[in-house]
Amino acid sequence: MTPDVTLVSNQRCFGGWQRVYEHRSAVLGCTMRFGVYLPPQAATQACPVLYWLSGLTCTEQNFITKAGSQMYAARYGLIVIAPDTSPRGCNLPGEEDSWDLGTGAGFYVNATQSPWASHYRMYDYVVSELPALVATHFPIAAGRQGILGHSMGGHGALVIGLRNPDQFRSISAFAPIVAPTQVPWGRKAFAAYLGDQEADWLAYDACHLVRHTTERRPLLVDQGDKDGFLGQQLRPELLEQACSEVGYPLTLRLQMGYDHSYYFIASFLGDHMAHHAAMLGMS
Amino acid sequence: MTPDVTLVSNQRCFGGWQRVYEHRSAVLGCTMRFGVYLPPQAATQACPVLYWLSGLTCTEQNFITKAGSQMYAARYGLIVIAPDTSPRGCNLPGEEDSWDLGTGAGFYVNATQSPWASHYRMYDYVVSELPALVATHFPIAAGRQGILGHSMGGHGALVIGLRNPDQFRSISAFAPIVAPTQVPWGRKAFAAYLGDQEADWLAYDACHLVRHTTERRPLLVDQGDKDGFLGQQLRPELLEQACSEVGYPLTLRLQMGYDHSYYFIASFLGDHMAHHAAMLGMS
Repeated sequence: MTPDVTLVSNQRCFGGWQRVYEHRSAVLGCTMRFGVYLPPQAATQACPVLYWLSGLTCTEQNFITKAGSQMYAARYGLIVIAPDTSPRGCNLPGEEDSWDLGTGAGFYVNATQSPWASHYRMYDYVVSELPALVATHFPIAAGRQGILGHSMGGHGALVIGLRNPDQFRSISAFAPIVAPTQVPWGRKAFAAYLGDQEADWLAYDACHLVRHTTERRPLLVDQGDKDGFLGQQLRPELLEQACSEVGYPLTLRLQMGYDHSYYFIASFLGDHMAHHAAMLGMS
Repeated sequence: MTPDVTLVSNQRCFGGWQRVYEHRSAVLGCTMRFGVYLPPQAATQACPVLYWLSGLTCTEQNFITKAGSQMYAARYGLIVIAPDTSPRGCNLPGEEDSWDLGTGAGFYVNATQSPWASHYRMYDYVVSELPALVATHFPIAAGRQGILGHSMGGHGALVIGLRNPDQFRSISAFAPIVAPTQVPWGRKAFAAYLGDQEADWLAYDACHLVRHTTERRPLLVDQGDKDGFLGQQLRPELLEQACSEVGYPLTLRLQMGYDHSYYFIASFLGDHMAHHAAMLGMS
């Protein structure tokens, strides 16, 4: 392991290893942490990689401690990367003022506006810098990557997956913000990060992107019907409508009684892992 | 639901419900919380009950958020009860001074010494008060209870299971303190809670109890060989020796590379749940 990443923790789990690394991100201009699960198979062969993107307020810890992902990753032989949700410790004005903007709320965009533009470039971080780092240090099966996430991270997974179909062969999401340009969370963040020209926002709106992409990766989306953010922030019917209009393949499942928590994610993560394993040739 | 318990949270998980309740404990003289997982089967039939006892510093939250238990409980149709690890908020002198005595460190004993004796009665709480409450409010299959736990809670599960074989038909533990009368954690706690007559401590020492019980429930114990507490606090070889001397049935598995964390617990919880399900007639 070359010294551009530092091992923070390393714990055996389901026959593999759950690790956390720290590194200096040139794209974000700060020190970042990310989780890596190495399945038992990674000891002897190259494995496909899944990127998990978390939601508002999360760090790299939430998914790796609460979702129960390691059992499935070990079953299918998938390396799972869990980045943080924003730059950290950049000391920008307003960075710590609210839970839905700044720290913990990077929204997986490249900010163009002051003071954010110098650091808040989570899109490039997830699409380029982190995969390059991962490919250097872990036994990655070239060309076999998938992406999934939750809430703000579900938005990130859809947007990044839809814009980079050659890079990500499988896409899924839990309770994603499917139309950030139309809902309060997204409009607040995009106005701050991207400015007041709303046309610039569309490159980060999954409902817009499905209407304008030619490559088509089947999407799996789960949404709890007792999710408190469903009607105002998530609005899966907008994605359903957009996909329907252009014939984009979408499996949208409304899960009765489920909320926005990791109890919901854990309940259906097995289906998502099976979806990715199948698309990545590991099932 | 009669008003002696209050629902704190209720979240759908693996087709059932992960709940947290609050109640006034007469035994402990304080307000306590406990987790309850109700599997889908509990909607239509009585189900066996498993008690999970957590380790030092834990609340009812650690197990229900990190272990991945709900998937197995739903598979086998088991209700899982996760109590807190000590009385809370009793304002006893010294209660908050250290992480291995007082709050978060009840050690599942009935304290006899001042100032603890008036509140620190976790043995009676887990053996009597909580099961009676549970039986009142949930669809319990009479006579089909199991118990398991981790570290201090593994000690609790072994001691409570061994002393109450008619009540608990299945017993298992992760990295338990098997001989609290011989190790620093146990000696500190027992001296404070039980006084300086060490003969009084033996009723809470699993290695002593296996030598003096007539009923024999097969024990399943997992222990990581990279557990930082292994040599000084846990010492599973003492349990192996005691069981060997009297022919008590023990399956002790040393798991290579695993530590003391919930990553270890999650990795082998499936085996424990299968063990309990089999002993409780649900596999």
